[in-house]
Amino acid sequence: MNDVLKDFVRLDLDRKERTGCAEVVYCAGKTPEQTAEIFRRLVEAEGEALGTRAQKEQADAVLKLFPDAVYDPLSKILKVERKEKESIGRIAVCAAGTSDLPVAEEAAQTAEFFGNKVDRFFDIGISGLHRLLGTIDEIRKASCVIAVAGMEGAMPSVLGGLVSVPVIAVPTSVGYGANFQGLSALLAMLNSCANGISVVNIDNGYGAGYIASQINRLAEHGGPEKRS
Amino acid sequence: MNDVLKDFVRLDLDRKERTGCAEVVYCAGKTPEQTAEIFRRLVEAEGEALGTRAQKEQADAVLKLFPDAVYDPLSKILKVERKEKESIGRIAVCAAGTSDLPVAEEAAQTAEFFGNKVDRFFDIGISGLHRLLGTIDEIRKASCVIAVAGMEGAMPSVLGGLVSVPVIAVPTSVGYGANFQGLSALLAMLNSCANGISVVNIDNGYGAGYIASQINRLAEHGGPEKRS
Amino acid sequence: MNDVLKDFVRLDLDRKERTGCAEVVYCAGKTPEQTAEIFRRLVEAEGEALGTRAQKEQADAVLKLFPDAVYDPLSKILKVERKEKESIGRIAVCAAGTSDLPVAEEAAQTAEFFGNKVDRFFDIGISGLHRLLGTIDEIRKASCVIAVAGMEGAMPSVLGGLVSVPVIAVPTSVGYGANFQGLSALLAMLNSCANGISVVNIDNGYGAGYIASQINRLAEHGGPEKRS
Amino acid sequence: MNDVLKDFVRLDLDRKERTGCAEVVYCAGKTPEQTAEIFRRLVEAEGEALGTRAQKEQADAVLKLFPDAVYDPLSKILKVERKEKESIGRIAVCAAGTSDLPVAEEAAQTAEFFGNKVDRFFDIGISGLHRLLGTIDEIRKASCVIAVAGMEGAMPSVLGGLVSVPVIAVPTSVGYGANFQGLSALLAMLNSCANGISVVNIDNGYGAGYIASQINRLAEHGGPEKRS
Amino acid sequence: MNDVLKDFVRLDLDRKERTGCAEVVYCAGKTPEQTAEIFRRLVEAEGEALGTRAQKEQADAVLKLFPDAVYDPLSKILKVERKEKESIGRIAVCAAGTSDLPVAEEAAQTAEFFGNKVDRFFDIGISGLHRLLGTIDEIRKASCVIAVAGMEGAMPSVLGGLVSVPVIAVPTSVGYGANFQGLSALLAMLNSCANGISVVNIDNGYGAGYIASQINRLAEHGGPEKRS
Amino acid sequence: MNDVLKDFVRLDLDRKERTGCAEVVYCAGKTPEQTAEIFRRLVEAEGEALGTRAQKEQADAVLKLFPDAVYDPLSKILKVERKEKESIGRIAVCAAGTSDLPVAEEAAQTAEFFGNKVDRFFDIGISGLHRLLGTIDEIRKASCVIAVAGMEGAMPSVLGGLVSVPVIAVPTSVGYGANFQGLSALLAMLNSCANGISVVNIDNGYGAGYIASQINRLAEHGGPEKRS
Amino acid sequence: MNDVLKDFVRLDLDRKERTGCAEVVYCAGKTPEQTAEIFRRLVEAEGEALGTRAQKEQADAVLKLFPDAVYDPLSKILKVERKEKESIGRIAVCAAGTSDLPVAEEAAQTAEFFGNKVDRFFDIGISGLHRLLGTIDEIRKASCVIAVAGMEGAMPSVLGGLVSVPVIAVPTSVGYGANFQGLSALLAMLNSCANGISVVNIDNGYGAGYIASQINRLAEHGGPEKRS
Amino acid sequence: MNDVLKDFVRLDLDRKERTGCAEVVYCAGKTPEQTAEIFRRLVEAEGEALGTRAQKEQADAVLKLFPDAVYDPLSKILKVERKEKESIGRIAVCAAGTSDLPVAEEAAQTAEFFGNKVDRFFDIGISGLHRLLGTIDEIRKASCVIAVAGMEGAMPSVLGGLVSVPVIAVPTSVGYGANFQGLSALLAMLNSCANGISVVNIDNGYGAGYIASQINRLAEHGGPEKRS
Repeated sequence: MNDVLKDFVRLDLDRKERTGCAEVVYCAGKTPEQTAEIFRRLVEAEGEALGTRAQKEQADAVLKLFPDAVYDPLSKILKVERKEKESIGRIAVCAAGTSDLPVAEEAAQTAEFFGNKVDRFFDIGISGLHRLLGTIDEIRKASCVIAVAGMEGAMPSVLGGLVSVPVIAVPTSVGYGANFQGLSALLAMLNSCANGISVVNIDNGYGAGYIASQINRLAEHGGPEKRS
Repeated sequence: MNDVLKDFVRLDLDRKERTGCAEVVYCAGKTPEQTAEIFRRLVEAEGEALGTRAQKEQADAVLKLFPDAVYDPLSKILKVERKEKESIGRIAVCAAGTSDLPVAEEAAQTAEFFGNKVDRFFDIGISGLHRLLGTIDEIRKASCVIAVAGMEGAMPSVLGGLVSVPVIAVPTSVGYGANFQGLSALLAMLNSCANGISVVNIDNGYGAGYIASQINRLAEHGGPEKRS
Repeated sequence: MNDVLKDFVRLDLDRKERTGCAEVVYCAGKTPEQTAEIFRRLVEAEGEALGTRAQKEQADAVLKLFPDAVYDPLSKILKVERKEKESIGRIAVCAAGTSDLPVAEEAAQTAEFFGNKVDRFFDIGISGLHRLLGTIDEIRKASCVIAVAGMEGAMPSVLGGLVSVPVIAVPTSVGYGANFQGLSALLAMLNSCANGISVVNIDNGYGAGYIASQINRLAEHGGPEKRS
Repeated sequence: MNDVLKDFVRLDLDRKERTGCAEVVYCAGKTPEQTAEIFRRLVEAEGEALGTRAQKEQADAVLKLFPDAVYDPLSKILKVERKEKESIGRIAVCAAGTSDLPVAEEAAQTAEFFGNKVDRFFDIGISGLHRLLGTIDEIRKASCVIAVAGMEGAMPSVLGGLVSVPVIAVPTSVGYGANFQGLSALLAMLNSCANGISVVNIDNGYGAGYIASQINRLAEHGGPEKRS
Repeated sequence: MNDVLKDFVRLDLDRKERTGCAEVVYCAGKTPEQTAEIFRRLVEAEGEALGTRAQKEQADAVLKLFPDAVYDPLSKILKVERKEKESIGRIAVCAAGTSDLPVAEEAAQTAEFFGNKVDRFFDIGISGLHRLLGTIDEIRKASCVIAVAGMEGAMPSVLGGLVSVPVIAVPTSVGYGANFQGLSALLAMLNSCANGISVVNIDNGYGAGYIASQINRLAEHGGPEKRS
Repeated sequence: MNDVLKDFVRLDLDRKERTGCAEVVYCAGKTPEQTAEIFRRLVEAEGEALGTRAQKEQADAVLKLFPDAVYDPLSKILKVERKEKESIGRIAVCAAGTSDLPVAEEAAQTAEFFGNKVDRFFDIGISGLHRLLGTIDEIRKASCVIAVAGMEGAMPSVLGGLVSVPVIAVPTSVGYGANFQGLSALLAMLNSCANGISVVNIDNGYGAGYIASQINRLAEHGGPEKRS
Repeated sequence: MNDVLKDFVRLDLDRKERTGCAEVVYCAGKTPEQTAEIFRRLVEAEGEALGTRAQKEQADAVLKLFPDAVYDPLSKILKVERKEKESIGRIAVCAAGTSDLPVAEEAAQTAEFFGNKVDRFFDIGISGLHRLLGTIDEIRKASCVIAVAGMEGAMPSVLGGLVSVPVIAVPTSVGYGANFQGLSALLAMLNSCANGISVVNIDNGYGAGYIASQINRLAEHGGPEKRS
Repeated sequence: MNDVLKDFVRLDLDRKERTGCAEVVYCAGKTPEQTAEIFRRLVEAEGEALGTRAQKEQADAVLKLFPDAVYDPLSKILKVERKEKESIGRIAVCAAGTSDLPVAEEAAQTAEFFGNKVDRFFDIGISGLHRLLGTIDEIRKASCVIAVAGMEGAMPSVLGGLVSVPVIAVPTSVGYGANFQGLSALLAMLNSCANGISVVNIDNGYGAGYIASQINRLAEHGGPEKRS
C-alpha cells in the first residue's frame, strides 16, 4: 500500500471515530452464509453489527453464530448490539399509514442503533388531519423529523410548514397503479412547496435514519469546528 | 342524412337543453379571424359564447365584432354573455398558490358562465395550513369543491379529508425541475389517500368547472329520473 | 388531547354522520389476523364493515369471526353488512370488457354498500359500438356514470358525449405491452375530448364507487346548504 | 462500385418503377437554398417532386425555381406535380378535430400525389358520435382508412370496429398536459381493442399516406405475384 | 331494441360475412372452464374457433370438449379448425431471432387460420445481414410483410427499404435492461427512416396477422367497391 | 376567525421568530409591479426581503423602490438586506462545474442571507479528482455540505464518503441529451451508495441553502429542547 | 444461394478468422435440451463454445454431453474451452460493489475466453475512495478498462478522469426504488463529465468483455491496415 | 496543498502528456468574453485550443483574439490549431442521414484535432442498404468506427455485424414525435443485437471522437505496458 492510500484509509477510520457509525450490512441479495460471515467480521472489528433488509434465513444464520442477535421481521433489521449507548437528543419518526411502518421502523431502529433517542408518530397521514395536528407539539421537540409516506406523499409538506427543523422525507412504494412503485410520492416530496424538506430514495428508511442521526448529533455536540 | 343520424343529432340537442351548456371554444391554435367567426356563429345560434385559452389578438378580433365581449387576461377567458342567469347552488374553487390562479379562474369563470354560484378560496396551500383550516367552514357549504394545485399537489388530499362532497382535483404545471410540467401534481392527486377525489388533465380548469357545474346542478335539481 | 384536536376529531365524526360511509378496510398487505381484528373493531363501532382487495385467507379469518360476512372472489370485496339500507337514486356502472369486471364490481358493490341503487352495463366496449348504443337510454337514467376500461380506455370519451351527468372514469391495468400496466388507459381518460369526465387511479374501483355515491346522494338530498 | 452494389442499386430502381413513388423531401431543418437545390435535382430526375414540412421561406425558394410549384401552408406540403395521374381506388382520410387537419391533409395530399383517390372525413371525433356514424357508409367504400386523432386518440378504435379494411392510425400531438406531446394518443392507438389497426409515428401524416397508397394499389392491381 | 341498434348489429354481422373472420378468444386471464365455454359457443355459432395466449390448462379443457382441437405451446395458439379453406395470396412472416418465434408464430398461424398462405423467414436478424439478404427475393413475393423483432427492432427498417408492399412491424419484449420490456423496439419501429412501416403493440402477433390478412385479401379480391 | 385558526397563525409567527427566516419571494412568473409590491410589504413587515429567480426587469422595479436593493444576475438573487447579522457556523457550498454556479450561488447567498457563514468550493467535479481532494480538509470544517452537480451528478457520492456531516445534494439541469433536464443527476443522487446524502429538487439552490441553514443553526444553538 | 449472398457469408467467416471469436450462446429462455444441442453444434464447428446467462439445469444438460464443460454459478458463464490460448495484453475489470460481481465476472470471463489477460479490481466503489485510488496504478497498466457499477453509477466517471485508455461502462440493475432497474446508473454513465467513457446495456457484462477484447487486440496487434 | 494532492495533480499532467489531448472547451452557455478568455489561457498553456458547440458570437470574439482561429458553423467546432500533427491510423465516421452531419462532423473534427486520420462515410442510412454495403470495404480499413444515427438508430447494429473493430454509436436527436429527442435511437443502440457496440450520449459527437482517438492510438502505438 502506497502513501496515498494510507492517508485515505486513515481518514476513513477517522470518520468512524467521529460519527460512531459502525459499517452497516445491506443484506439483500446475500446468502445466509455470506451474511453470517460478514456479521462475524464486523462484530470482531467493531464489537457489534447492524444489518438491513434481512430475511429470516439470514437472521437464523446469524443467530446461530450470535445467540444475542436480534431480528425484527417488520423492519427487517438484524443486529448484534452490545455497546452501552446513551441515547442523545431527539428524532421524530413520522409515518403516514400502517403500510409505511416497515420503512419507518427501519429508519427509527437505525437511528436508535446509532445512539439517538427516537419518538414514533405513526398513522398520522393527512387524510385525517387531526391525527397529525394532535401530535405536532410533540413532534416539534425533535432536532430532526423523518417523514415516511407512500401514495401521494403529502405528509412531509404539511409537516414542513409546521416545524422549524429539517424534515427528511422518505417516499415509500406503498400504493398501486399510478404510484408507479413510489414515483408519485418521490416526485411530490421533491416538489414540496414547504421549506426544509430533503428527500432520500424510495423505501430508504436506513438512509433517513443515518442523516437524522448526523443532524441530531450536530444539535447535541455542535459542528466539526466546535468539537475540534 | 339518414335516420340513424337524426336520432343522434337530436340526442345531442336534447343534451344542450338539459345541461344549459352552450358549446365552448378552445381558442388555442386558432387565428383571430377563425376565433371571431366561430364566436359569430355561436352567438347567432346560442345567444352567447364562451371561449377558453384566448390570446389578446383573438380577444381583439371578437371585441371588434361584439363590443360587449369580455376578456380576462388572467384566466384567458373570452366571452359574450347575454343571458340572464340565476346563479344556483354553490361551488368552492380553491387554489394552493398565486401561480395557480389562471387555472383556478378558468374553472371559476366557466362554472359561473354555466349558471353556478362560485366561492373563491385562493392561496390556501398546505405549507401554511392555517390558511386552509381558516376557510374550511366556508368551503364545506359547497356542493362540489374544485382544488387547484401545482408542485406536490397535496391540497386536494387535505381537502378530501375535511369535506363530504366530491373534490375535483386540477393539477397545474406550476413548478420546475422534477415537477415535469405537472406530472408530480397529477400523480399525487391520482394517488390520494383521501376519499372523494377525482382528477382532470393538467391545467384543465375548464374541465373542472364543467364537472362541478354538472354536480352542483344535480344537487339543485336532482338526477335525470327526478327531473323527468 | 388538546382543544385543537377535539375540534378536528369532532369534525371527522360529523362527516361520517353526514355521508353514512363507515371507514373502509384496504386489505392488501395485511395478515389474516390483522384483517380480522380491524373488522372486529369496525363492526363493534359502526355495526358493519366493508373491505376491499381481500384475499381468501383474509376472508376466512373474518368469516370465522362473523359467519354472516360475505366474500366475493371476483371483486375481492369482503363485508359484514347488517344495516337496513334503502337504496337511493341510480348509478350506472359500465365496463368495457369482461377482464374489467373485477374493477367494475369493486365500484358497483362499494356504491351498493353505501346505499345506492346500481345498474350494471358490462362488456359494452367501443370496438362493438352497437352494444354501448343499445344500452345508452338506460345509462342516461343514472345520476352518475362510472366507466371502467383498460387498453386504450376510450369508452369514457364515447359515454361523455352521450350523457349529461358526470362520468367517473376508471382506467384498468388490463392489456399488455405498451399499455404499461394501465398507463395507456389513464392518459387517454385524462385527455378525453368529451366534457364531464374525471379520472381516478388505475384499478381504483372503490374510489369511483365512493365518488359516485357522493354525487348520487347530492342528486337525491341536495347540497350541504339545502340539507342544513 | 462492385457487383454486390450494382445489384442493390438496381433493386432500388426496380422499386421505384413498381411503386411509382418519387423520392420525397423532408424539408424540416434544411435551408431554403438546400431545399431548392434538392427539388431541382428531383424534378430533373423524376419529372416532379414532393416535399413535406416545408416552411414559407423554403416554398418561396422553390417557387422562384419552379413557378408551377404549389405550396399549402396548412399541410406544409410543397410540390411540383407535372405527371398526368389517373387517381385509382379510394382512401378515406378521417380526422377527429379541426386541430388535426394539418396532419390529415399531409396524409391526404401525399396519397393524392402518389395517384390515389382520397375522400376526406374531417371533424368526426367521438365526443359527438353522430358525426362519425353519419359518414360511416361513405368511409366503408375505401380500401384503406387513415384515422388521425390527438388527445385520447380513440377514433381509430371506434372506426376499427365498423370497417373491414386496414385502419392506419396517426396519433397527433394535439392536446396539452398529460397528452405529453402525443404520447396519450400513441399509446391508445397501440392498445386498441379493435382489430385491424396499425400505427405510425406521432404527426406522421406522410407515412400514413404512403402506406395507404401501398394498400390501395394492392387492392387495385393485386400483389407482387399477380402482377409478375 | 330500437331501430338504431338493429342497424348496427346488422352492420357487424355484415362485417363477419365480408371478412370471414370468426371472433377470436384472447385466453389470457380466463379460467379453463370459461375458455372451454366460450369455445363451445363459438364453435356452435361459427363452426370453428381460434384462441390466442392459451395456457396448457385451458387447452386441456377445450380438448376434453373438442378432441380435434389443436394446441401449439410455442405460439400459445389454440384452435378448433374445421372449415375447408383455400389459402390465398402470400404473406411473409419474418422474425429477427429465435426468441421472437412465439410472436412470429402467433402472427403466422392467425393469418393461416383466416385463410392466407404464409411463408416463414425466421432468424434473419440484421446482425448477420446475409441471412436477410439471402431470402429477400422470396420475401418480395408477398403482398404484405410481417416483421417481428425485439431488442433494437431494426429489421423492419431494413426490410422497408427492400420491399414495395406494407410492412407490419411487431416489436417484441425480447431483450433485457434498457429494452424496457419492448419499448426500445417499439420506439425504433415507430421512428423508422424507411417508408411503408406501421406498428402494432408489443408482442401483438395476432394483431399483425389480422391486418396482414386484410391486406392480402384486398390484393386478392380488390377493395370494397370492386367487390360490391 | 375561530380559535383553531388563531392557534395556527400564532404557531406560524412563532416559527419565524425561532428560525429567523423572513418569507422569501419566488419571483418567477410575477410582473415587475407585483414583485415590487411584494418587496414593499415584506420590507415593511420584516425590515428586509429576499427574492429568488429574479429577472432584471423585476430587479429594476425593486431598485426604484429601494435604491439599496442588491441584484446578482448570476444567481438571480434580489435582496434588500438591512439587518445586522452575525454569520454563524460554517456551510460548505461545493459545485462540480462552472455551469452549476448559478444554482450554487443561489444556495450560498440564501444561506448567507439567513445568517450563516459560507465557504465556496467551485469547479471541483470528479473528472479531475485532485481538485476535490485538494479542498477536502477545508470542506470538512463545515457543519453541512451543499453539493451542486449536473450531468452524472456523482460529486455528492464522492463527498459523502469523505465527510461526517449531512450532504444536501442539488441536481442541476446542466447537460444535454440523456440528462433529460436534470433527471440523470437527480436519480444518481437519490441512489447514492454513500451515506448521509439527501436530495432537493433539480436546480433548487434556495431549498438547499434553507436546509443547510437549519442544520448549521442546530449545530450552533442545539435542538428545540436545548433552546427552550 | 445467389452471388450477393456468397459474398456476405464469406465476409462473415472472414470476420471470425480475424477476431477469433466463436459465436456465443445467450442461454436465457432456452430449454436445457436446446442449450445442449446448440453447444453440440458449436463445439463440433468451432472446437469450443461459450454460453452466457446459463441456469443450472442448462449447465447439467451440457455437462452430460461434455463432461469437461465448466459452469460458474456466479457469472452464469457456461463453457467448453479446449483451445490453447495465449492470453494477450491486459484488460482491467473494475466493480463498484460485491453485488455487481455477477456482471463483472461475466465481462471478465468473456474477455478471458477470447484470449485476453484480465486483472480484476472489485469492491472499489467511490463511497470509499481510497479503495479505488489504492489500485489505480495497477488499473493504469491495462489497454482497456471495464467499469461495472449499479446505483448511482459514478465509478466510471472517476476512473475516466484517472486513466488514458477507453473505459467501457456497464450499468447494473443493482439497487432499488429510484434506480428503476438500472436506469439511474445508465443515465449517469451516459452523462459522464469525464472523457473516454462509452456505455453498454444494463447488466451487459458480455458486451463489455467483447468490446474490451477488440480494443486489447488492437493494442496488441494493431489495426486492420497494419495487419493486412 | 498536501502530498496526496501533489500526487494527483502530477498524474493529471502526466495524462495530458500521454494522450496528447489538450483540454477542450464546451462553449455552450458561456458568454463570448468568457469563451475568448478561456481560449486565450489555453493557447498560452497548450499552444492551441479546441472548442465545441460554439455559436457565431463566440467565434467572433475568439477570432478577434486569434485571427488564425477557424470556425465551422456546421459542426460548431471552433479551434486554434497550430501544432504540426502527423495524422495516424484510420477512423471511420459514418452518418445515417444528412441531418446527422453536425454531430458526425463534431466527431470527425475532434478526432482530426487529436491527430487521427479520419475517413467520412455520410448518408449511408439503412433504408437504402446499398449505400452502406457499397462502402463497407473502405469502412473495414479503420481501427475504430463511429456510427452516427437518429430516428430508429439502426445503422450501428448493421455495421456491428460487418466489421471486426469497435463501433462507437452516437444517437442523435434527429427525428420527431416518438423519437423523444433521441431516446429512440439511444435505446436502439443500447439494445443492439450485434457485438462490439458501445454508446455515448445523444448528440455527443465530441465524446465519440475522443474515444475513437484513444482506440486508434492504441492500435498504432500499443497499450500502456508496451509503451512504457
